[in-house]
This record gives sequence, structure tokens and C-alpha cells, in this order.
Amino acid sequence: MPSPDAPLLRALRGERPDTAPIWFMRQAGRSLPEYRELRVGTRMLDACLTPDLAAEITLQPVRRHGVDAGIFFSDIVVPLRLAGIEVEIVPGRGPVFADPVRTRADVDRVTAIDPAEVAAAAEPVRAAVRAVVSELDGARTPLIGFAGAPFTLAAYLVEGGPSKEHLRARALMHADPGAWHALAGWLAQVSRAFLQAQIESGAAAVQLFDSWAGSLAPSDLRAFVLPHSTAAVQGLDVPVIHFGVGTGPVLADMRLGGIASAVGVDWRVPLDEAARTVGGETTLQGNIDPALLAAPWEVLEAHVRDVLERGRAARAHIVNLGHGVPPETDPTVLTRIVELVHSV
Amino acid sequence: MPSPDAPLLRALRGERPDTAPIWFMRQAGRSLPEYRELRVGTRMLDACLTPDLAAEITLQPVRRHGVDAGIFFSDIVVPLRLAGIEVEIVPGRGPVFADPVRTRADVDRVTAIDPAEVAAAAEPVRAAVRAVVSELDGARTPLIGFAGAPFTLAAYLVEGGPSKEHLRARALMHADPGAWHALAGWLAQVSRAFLQAQIESGAAAVQLFDSWAGSLAPSDLRAFVLPHSTAAVQGLDVPVIHFGVGTGPVLADMRLGGIASAVGVDWRVPLDEAARTVGGETTLQGNIDPALLAAPWEVLEAHVRDVLERGRAARAHIVNLGHGVPPETDPTVLTRIVELVHSV
Repeated sequence: MPSPDAPLLRALRGERPDTAPIWFMRQAGRSLPEYRELRVGTRMLDACLTPDLAAEITLQPVRRHGVDAGIFFSDIVVPLRLAGIEVEIVPGRGPVFADPVRTRADVDRVTAIDPAEVAAAAEPVRAAVRAVVSELDGARTPLIGFAGAPFTLAAYLVEGGPSKEHLRARALMHADPGAWHALAGWLAQVSRAFLQAQIESGAAAVQLFDSWAGSLAPSDLRAFVLPHSTAAVQGLDVPVIHFGVGTGPVLADMRLGGIASAVGVDWRVPLDEAARTVGGETTLQGNIDPALLAAPWEVLEAHVRDVLERGRAARAHIVNLGHGVPPETDPTVLTRIVELVHSV
Repeated sequence: MPSPDAPLLRALRGERPDTAPIWFMRQAGRSLPEYRELRVGTRMLDACLTPDLAAEITLQPVRRHGVDAGIFFSDIVVPLRLAGIEVEIVPGRGPVFADPVRTRADVDRVTAIDPAEVAAAAEPVRAAVRAVVSELDGARTPLIGFAGAPFTLAAYLVEGGPSKEHLRARALMHADPGAWHALAGWLAQVSRAFLQAQIESGAAAVQLFDSWAGSLAPSDLRAFVLPHSTAAVQGLDVPVIHFGVGTGPVLADMRLGGIASAVGVDWRVPLDEAARTVGGETTLQGNIDPALLAAPWEVLEAHVRDVLERGRAARAHIVNLGHGVPPETDPTVLTRIVELVHSV
């Protein structure tokens, strides 16, 4: 069982453990040779929905790096697959949907699916989470549950795949606000059901990934997106971390009015500046620049120490990267960062 | 010959013509059926370096839409091709370099090329620009010259192709600052030579595209990027427009200390807010949200009117999109926007 004294959970409550807790977004996955070996012959979404595999992949980086949290290995489109929507992860490209959701009729087709279907189909997720939690030392290393936020999910679903500036999803907001809100509201319920399945099975915190939130004008973010992100996480039984890339100008909004215990900060905004923006009631997570993982150690070390120093301006600090681990990262560098952070 | 009374040039000097000048980034290109027809069987970089073709493609949107400026049809990697670097534009992917520039030795190999080679090889560019300028009505429609900024060029050159977060170029800045500055300084001279060839041949203004500037932490932008962008454009004989996506937090820096007569603003920041940030000595360009080109006309019209209204807070306003015309745009919508802006 997770203990409330685990450094991650203390930091989420605003306390400062002796050393700052640290984990890495995408720590489970492509940077690890043991992951690449395990994944041979298994498609991404099948791996996510095979309990033994998902559990083992989640545990690999905890064993290797000694991080202070596991992050459940999954993909943001998994709850959509559980809802019966046809989607595949194409290597080198990303999620591709057989039937993009572009018209009011498309929205009606998708939102006719009862979000309870996700909960009903989530047994492989529950089994994987239970297996992870039973292996982890709950006093030190809680499991963080994982879900994509409604806008980032919609960005893929409306486009039918990855896109640079998410034009189709952003167009739908203005072209047919009713259809947009119906879709985003449904996605919020789907994300929520996916998070609840993880919490019921032992996840001690959750992170809502709104990776593309920074592509929105702040007025659009507030009107069309954050109410649905709030619906996805409000009233859950565990602390919430809310993350997006390029959200420096809207970090205060990313607090979701205080529902988020922590907000993630990418590499563009120094944490002391971010702390001034979000105020004293929110923990900050971040913000090592992933580009520096490829720099010489002394350059990276100076950067990590600077991040830690600036992070002291926040009420509490969970060390992480500013975005996910790049696939080509040398994993020994990640282990060395954990050792450094735990020694400061 | 371009007249100083052309609305675009007046706006760049800070005056307010009767109606706001308007043009569209990427107005020349894939959204036009006449362009797609002309390009059949010709590779992108060959089209850029065939004077008749480049001139005709540059003129097509001026004829069709009645915009207040031509933008020279080219690609940011053209000056690198002129310098003898092996690069191709792969359809659906973007520029791909045969030999990425990742090590100090790679940088030495590239920077050994005399930037004067670009000027010497630029005759097709000069011929195309002369042909365009002789066709345009200079009293109304000047030609804007085009170049990529050193960082955005480096983002492609170091990666070897397109990348999401430009990790390798950003890593090089910190891993080997000497190599970075050598490369970026050389790229500044290459961009400058490319711009000068266009100015000599009749371009009446230039735009420096630093499309990916917004991916940088402000401190990195200031230390590693803007000095080189400044070197690319300082002291040119024509006004400079400086553009990047996601540069809301650093718009004041994008002024290049006043060397830029105008800065481009993407769709994330309302122009009245941008005007407060950049102050009264800089013209703003932008910032219609490209996503709204796909919305019903009444939604788009209201948005364009809002952009015009907020643009009144700037010393002067050049209407444009917040980024380039998406390829799937209905070109009749662009014409209608021009008519609207000219009627207000």
C-alpha cells in the first residue's frame, strides 16, 4: 500500500522531504534496452492492454533508476480503444484513427458510446496496476496513474492522427461549439473512467497530460478546454498533477482553480518565475531541459542544480524533465540525475 | 519600382494607411490549384531555383487575392543548397540533409564554405526577383524578400530533417557553445547573402522567419540565437519583419533592439496585449488564427474584425495569419478576407 509519507505524496501536499522526489515523464519506454527487448513482436496498444507486460514495463525504470514514483505505462488513446474506437499506434508516426471525428454526426456517433464501457473494459488496466502496486515499495515509491486530457485526445481524434498545430480540433471549437463541447465533455468522462480504474487498483496520484494545451490561445484554453479537464479530475480520491508543453503563459490557469496539487512546467520557464506565477498553493513539477540530456555531464549537472535551486521558490518541487524522455536518451544519464538529486 | 507610399511600406514605417495592408504567409504555394498545376513534375528546390517558375508562383496569389505584398517564393534551405550543401525537400516530410551537422568537425566542414558562394550562386534568385518586381505594381504591391533565421536553419541542419522540439540543435548550444556560435554565425552570413540578393534585385522589405524560436527558453534565445538573427539583418537597406511561432513571452526580444520594423505575432496572443509588450516603436503583423480558415464565414469574419480592432493598439498593423496558410485551405476564403480587410 502507498504510504502518505512517500516523498512524492509529501511534495504533492506541499511539504519538502529531505531530498526532492524525482521521476521522468516517459521513463517507461523506448530509452530502455530492456523495454525494447520486451516489446519485440508486440504492438504498442497490445502491450498496454497485456497486464504482465504493462506491469513489467512500468516497473523497469523504477528498478533501474531508483526514481521516487512509477508512472503507469499506457498511451493516451488506450481509453478510446477500451471504448471501442478503432485506433492503432503506427511506429514513427503515432496514433491513427480509422474514422476521424470531424462533423456533428461523427461526434454523435462517438458520444453515443457510454463512458461506462471504458470502466467495464478496463480489467487489463486494473490487473496491471494491481501487479505494479504489489511490487513497489509503497513507503517510498507510489504509482502515478496516467490519462490524456480532453483537448489533447481531441487533437488526435479530430485530426485522425498527429498534427502540428491541431488546426482541425481548434477549428471545431469555433465552427461548432456545441459539437466541440459534446465531444470534449465525453472525452472528460472517458479519461476520468480510465483514471478511476487506476486509482481503484492502487494508483496513489494521477497525472493529466494535456501535451498540446500550449498550442491554444489562452482565451480558447479557458473557454473550450479547462472546464473539461476539470471535469476529468475534480473530486478524485488522489492528488492530481496537470501537465502541458508551452504552458508558461497560462500556468496559473493550469492549476484548475486549485484542483491540481501540482502543475508541470516545460523547459521554457525558470521555476522561480513559474512559482511567482502559480503562487504558494501549488507544487511545481519539472523542468530539466530534455535537450541537455545529450550534453556533457558537467553541463547537465550544472543545469540540474540550477533547476533544484530555482525550484526552492515553489511551495514544493517534484523533479522531472520539461517533457518526456527522448527515445535516443542514454539511460545511464537518467540514473545519474536521480543520484545527483538524491544527494543534494 | 516600389513606391514608399505602398500601404505595406507605410505600415512598416509606423504610419496607418486608409486600410490596413494584408498578405498571408505561404500565400504562394499549396493552397492554390494554379500552383499545384504548375509544380507537377518539378521538385520543390528546383522550382525555387527556376526563375520563371519562382516568379510565376510568387505572382499567383497577388493576382488572385489582391494582397498588398508579394512574398518571394522560396524555401528556407535554398541558401544552403546555393552554398553547396546536399539537401532535398521530401514531400510530406520536409527538408532532409544527406549529412547532418552534429559534431565540431561537421561544423568546421560546413563553415569552411565561404558565404560569398551563396551570393555568387544566387543568380536564379536575382532573376526571379527582377521578374516579379517588373510585373508588380510597385505603388501598391511591394515584394517582401524571404529568409530563414539561423536557429530555425540550424534546427533542420543539426537534426538532419524536421524535428518536434529541436533537441539536437538545442543540445549543441550547451554541449559545445563554440561550435554552436560558429555554425549560427555562418548561417547568419548565409541568410544575409540570400536576403541581399533579393534586395539588390528589387525586394522592398524582408521577413526573417525564425519559425521555431518559441521552442527556446528565453535565456537561450537571448544568449544563443538573437545575436545571430541580428547579424543576419542589421544594416540592410530595407525594413525587416521578424517572425516566430509561440514567441508571445519573448515578443519584446523579437524586436532585435529596434532593428525589426515589425514583429509577427502568432494566434496565441491578442494584438492589444502584444502591443503593450512591444511598445510604440514597432509595427505588429498578424494574427488571424489559421484554424479559423475552416470555420463558417460569420465566425471567421467576427475573428478578423476582432484582430483588426485589437491591432489598433499597435503603432501600425499589417494583417496576416498567425502562421502559414494550411495546404488544405480553400483559397476563396483568403480572397474574401482581403476584401473584408480592404472594406473596413
